[in-house]
Amino acid sequence: MLLPEGGPRVVNVGLELFAAELTALGVPVSPLDWRPPAGGDARLAALLVRLDARRDAIERANAEALARLTGGTPVLVDCRPAREALELADRTVLHAGPPIAWERMCEPMQAAILCAIRYEGWAANADAATALVTRGAVRLEPCHHHRAVGPMTGIVTPSMPVFVVENRAYGLRAHATINEGLGKVLRFGATDDSVIARLNWLATEAGPLLGAALRASGGIDLRALMAQALRMGDEMHQRNLAASALLARAVMPGVAKVGGRHHAVARLAEFIAGNDQFFLNLAMAAGKALADPASGVADSTLVTTMARNGTDFGIRVSGLGERWFTAPVNMPQGLYFPGYGEGDANPDMGDSAIVETIGLGGLAMAASPAVARFVGAGGMSAALAVTEEMREITTGEHPHFRIPTLDDRGAPVGIDIRLVVETGITPLINTGIAGRKAGVGQVGAGVVRASLGSFTAALEALAG
Amino acid sequence: MLLPEGGPRVVNVGLELFAAELTALGVPVSPLDWRPPAGGDARLAALLVRLDARRDAIERANAEALARLTGGTPVLVDCRPAREALELADRTVLHAGPPIAWERMCEPMQAAILCAIRYEGWAANADAATALVTRGAVRLEPCHHHRAVGPMTGIVTPSMPVFVVENRAYGLRAHATINEGLGKVLRFGATDDSVIARLNWLATEAGPLLGAALRASGGIDLRALMAQALRMGDEMHQRNLAASALLARAVMPGVAKVGGRHHAVARLAEFIAGNDQFFLNLAMAAGKALADPASGVADSTLVTTMARNGTDFGIRVSGLGERWFTAPVNMPQGLYFPGYGEGDANPDMGDSAIVETIGLGGLAMAASPAVARFVGAGGMSAALAVTEEMREITTGEHPHFRIPTLDDRGAPVGIDIRLVVETGITPLINTGIAGRKAGVGQVGAGVVRASLGSFTAALEALAG
Repeated sequence: MLLPEGGPRVVNVGLELFAAELTALGVPVSPLDWRPPAGGDARLAALLVRLDARRDAIERANAEALARLTGGTPVLVDCRPAREALELADRTVLHAGPPIAWERMCEPMQAAILCAIRYEGWAANADAATALVTRGAVRLEPCHHHRAVGPMTGIVTPSMPVFVVENRAYGLRAHATINEGLGKVLRFGATDDSVIARLNWLATEAGPLLGAALRASGGIDLRALMAQALRMGDEMHQRNLAASALLARAVMPGVAKVGGRHHAVARLAEFIAGNDQFFLNLAMAAGKALADPASGVADSTLVTTMARNGTDFGIRVSGLGERWFTAPVNMPQGLYFPGYGEGDANPDMGDSAIVETIGLGGLAMAASPAVARFVGAGGMSAALAVTEEMREITTGEHPHFRIPTLDDRGAPVGIDIRLVVETGITPLINTGIAGRKAGVGQVGAGVVRASLGSFTAALEALAG
Repeated sequence: MLLPEGGPRVVNVGLELFAAELTALGVPVSPLDWRPPAGGDARLAALLVRLDARRDAIERANAEALARLTGGTPVLVDCRPAREALELADRTVLHAGPPIAWERMCEPMQAAILCAIRYEGWAANADAATALVTRGAVRLEPCHHHRAVGPMTGIVTPSMPVFVVENRAYGLRAHATINEGLGKVLRFGATDDSVIARLNWLATEAGPLLGAALRASGGIDLRALMAQALRMGDEMHQRNLAASALLARAVMPGVAKVGGRHHAVARLAEFIAGNDQFFLNLAMAAGKALADPASGVADSTLVTTMARNGTDFGIRVSGLGERWFTAPVNMPQGLYFPGYGEGDANPDMGDSAIVETIGLGGLAMAASPAVARFVGAGGMSAALAVTEEMREITTGEHPHFRIPTLDDRGAPVGIDIRLVVETGITPLINTGIAGRKAGVGQVGAGVVRASLGSFTAALEALAG
């Protein structure tokens, strides 16, 4: 079983079996599922007790943060170059996860940055690109600091087109690049000529066509589309088949209307039809558009960002504003493509955990028994058990994202750092696995636990 | 609870509850779920006993019929006028269900036939059309006699474009019209100008465009698409959202390639995008392409056709070839659109029960908790109970159509008339509800039980 790892506790089912075994052996087992808070760590337990004195204020703040987190209305309105949409300065490269210096970056992220510099034409080869970076002539910054999110390496440069998702309820926008497809792609650290050729086509043909279609359409309601896709077996991190097909169906009439050159329309239709993860980047942009308004509620202990850069795992917490709390990122566990194994895997990477932050992905595993099977977690009962476990560290149920296998009960949402530290249960994140060597690309897919250290660090800051 | 009706038995859950209640009252209840065969009907019980003497031959035949029923490979290859694809003669109108004389037809079917005659230009108004029919100048025949299936009234005339689905494993083809959308449409007996205008557009623009795209594409593998859609919450009778979106995604690149006039491409894309039941007709054509090879296996007691014409319910059985066994059709039970109620409903209608014949629709309810909720049957547990009940009257599990909520166990398939008669459990069919008055169109959707009388009549023919 590849699924649960990390915390001191696995899933309820496992614990109950364990109890049953003890009972069978004549060992008395309390029916109460009690564990020592914070895994018996006296210092953390004391912090939790200290926070308990502010309980009312925290609960009020969390109610407000949760309402913001779940009340947004993300609408896909445009696709434009990052230069325009993000006002991204020349010679700037955005990357996934919390801030990190070039030297500490993992190989695939460094490789992707050098490839992006070649794509932008700032350097003719990798050596020249490296020289630019090491002498500080190219700025490296997190996507999250520029109203953007990026999957895996998460690279965004000024000429790349980005989808624009507007949270109309809160009047803000979030952005993500167009998903490149599977295999040898920039986000997994691949760097060959086909990667740059695809980026050029996205910038010169696909992006402008999508942008014109979206501007003419008045926008596509992503909250409704995502709620529908969740009823169709997508958790929108590991599986985006339904959302991708629904989006293709929704966007193609507009593309056909604005696309005078019908070969361009056909190429774009074919590209979208060939990528079952096309929607992932949109789920992420919608996720950031939904999560950002929940940031900055004083006293709130709810998580507003989870992100990984392949080296560190980082979270941001509503009551602690824009500050990152990091810890070493975990290794994903999962299935590998033929010819690859655990030894080829990079530690976990990408801003895509924003999907879990809004109650989807691993938190909504019950909606995706196929994903639970794929990552080796068994079938329907394991999928239900994961979502049930995630309810222990979340404060609410999503009013719009509902799970049909649970009779339309809402997905667990609003990760509370107090509950994470108290129970030792960390969010389960569905994820892709990049090769740890530069240029390899994707080697598998699986699950990973958020790093507990990020949550304890945030708790210390909040209670300190 | 709107769901189960018809047979002498409801669902397992109900019976178990009943038993539990009896036990609570101190009444001894046998743990064995025994009921008298054939509901205690001595004549039918004797027929079952007589068939039991041929048991080995029947089991061998049923294994062969089941292998044919589940082993086909339906591929969507073309869209052409029925005149060409079916070699449909002039002044011929095909209708749903078993054969029926004009005088016995329900109002919406008569209305749809008169409207189709006007659409073809054989008569200028309904009176003239009626005169043509009553003096025998227009032939009325079942779709099923012409390698076709039609939803609800199921009308097909020569100039209507039909999808062509080829079962490549068995070298035969089946056909169905393009789904018209919801509301006031011919298949539900609506007849106003908008109905004819839409039919004209389908024949002159949409059909030719789809046909050209499909011929250029080499075909779309419907078995794979349907297996995928079943994992996405479609049972492909009441719900075709996933299949429709997957089909739109698959067909649009080809449409854009062949469609020189991009406004035509945009109109077609918009039409497909606006109809969540677009795939229904394709599920039906695929169903017939899959079921037809299973016909004509001597001694087989498996059902190869279920169809309704709004007056009669009819089945055909493998070992009995092309012969129909009919009984009065039941009234559907379900939910009504605002302004309509049970008094407005026509008895059940359409060839769409071919979907249940191949193990989808009501038989695969476990894949569609949303449909179970919609038809008022409760949620996930009711959906599971329906599929569990259908296993009692089927001989196999589908090797390709698998249900994720059941850990990918195959859908129940191969309805055995012996099991239906013995248990009194009739197939549960998910269905639309037409208004009983001419011109009204769809008034609701729900479920209906197949008519037991069709199965007893077939059993008598087989055992007689």
